[in-house]
Amino acid sequence: MSTASAFADRGSKEQIETGSAFAPKFDEKGLIPAIATDFDSGEVLMQAWMNAEALAKTIEIGEAVYWSRSRQELWHKGATSGHTQIVKELRTDCDQDSIWLRVEQKGGAACHVGYRSCFYRRIPVGAQAAGDAELEVTESEKAYDPAAVYGKKSH
Amino acid sequence: MSTASAFADRGSKEQIETGSAFAPKFDEKGLIPAIATDFDSGEVLMQAWMNAEALAKTIEIGEAVYWSRSRQELWHKGATSGHTQIVKELRTDCDQDSIWLRVEQKGGAACHVGYRSCFYRRIPVGAQAAGDAELEVTESEKAYDPAAVYGKKSH
Repeated sequence: MSTASAFADRGSKEQIETGSAFAPKFDEKGLIPAIATDFDSGEVLMQAWMNAEALAKTIEIGEAVYWSRSRQELWHKGATSGHTQIVKELRTDCDQDSIWLRVEQKGGAACHVGYRSCFYRRIPVGAQAAGDAELEVTESEKAYDPAAVYGKKSH
Repeated sequence: MSTASAFADRGSKEQIETGSAFAPKFDEKGLIPAIATDFDSGEVLMQAWMNAEALAKTIEIGEAVYWSRSRQELWHKGATSGHTQIVKELRTDCDQDSIWLRVEQKGGAACHVGYRSCFYRRIPVGAQAAGDAELEVTESEKAYDPAAVYGKKSH
């Protein structure tokens, strides 16, 4: 059940864009980008990847399951930290090659670094910034202490 | 200026996660995922891709410039439709392999199909839905008529 065959075959461009058949497109590595936003604030919490099994599992259990590219294994987000993501709504885009998860983030933080969102740094925009951008941290404090959750060595 | 060398070299994991040097990671095709959300509503408008040149150009002009994988060319979003995206804030994530653009969407719509967001369909979640998901359209109406903007054949 948790294979690519769990989903419909890709049809014509019109079927993909306007039809009701869910026919996600995985890349040559079998992955599709997945974007998790906070259901209440709309903040982008993280961007990760799913394979067909992770996507099928996410739909089945209603919690975010990704594919860890570094560990090459299914990654039920929060299994270690308790910071699971309850899927309040799941969407796909016009060409069905991207997934958007609107989630309730348990534990208040998605990022292993300790911030609410993985996107905790701003890239300055403007002509003068193009060559030599210095990132600016957007958060005033971390939501939790990674060392307390993961041990001294954060994963 | 609009090449990969416009950005810092990748450093250690700690430097990448906590440093202020912007050292984006492009994949083996030279691309990085880019997520555009509406600055006011937080809605995810689209997910596209940037190469180093598109990213440098986005930073320089403050409007979203992507890399079109289908056309294999730089894609200044809105150049044809007038639906440009003014970048109000640009962020990167912990491992600097994803870009988040918070934009003001000109023309009220990001999607070539005519909807505000490309993510106009919901995937039902739950055990009973896993095998046979029927997509549900989330929008009550299109924001514009693609045929009027792009001509009879939408791109």
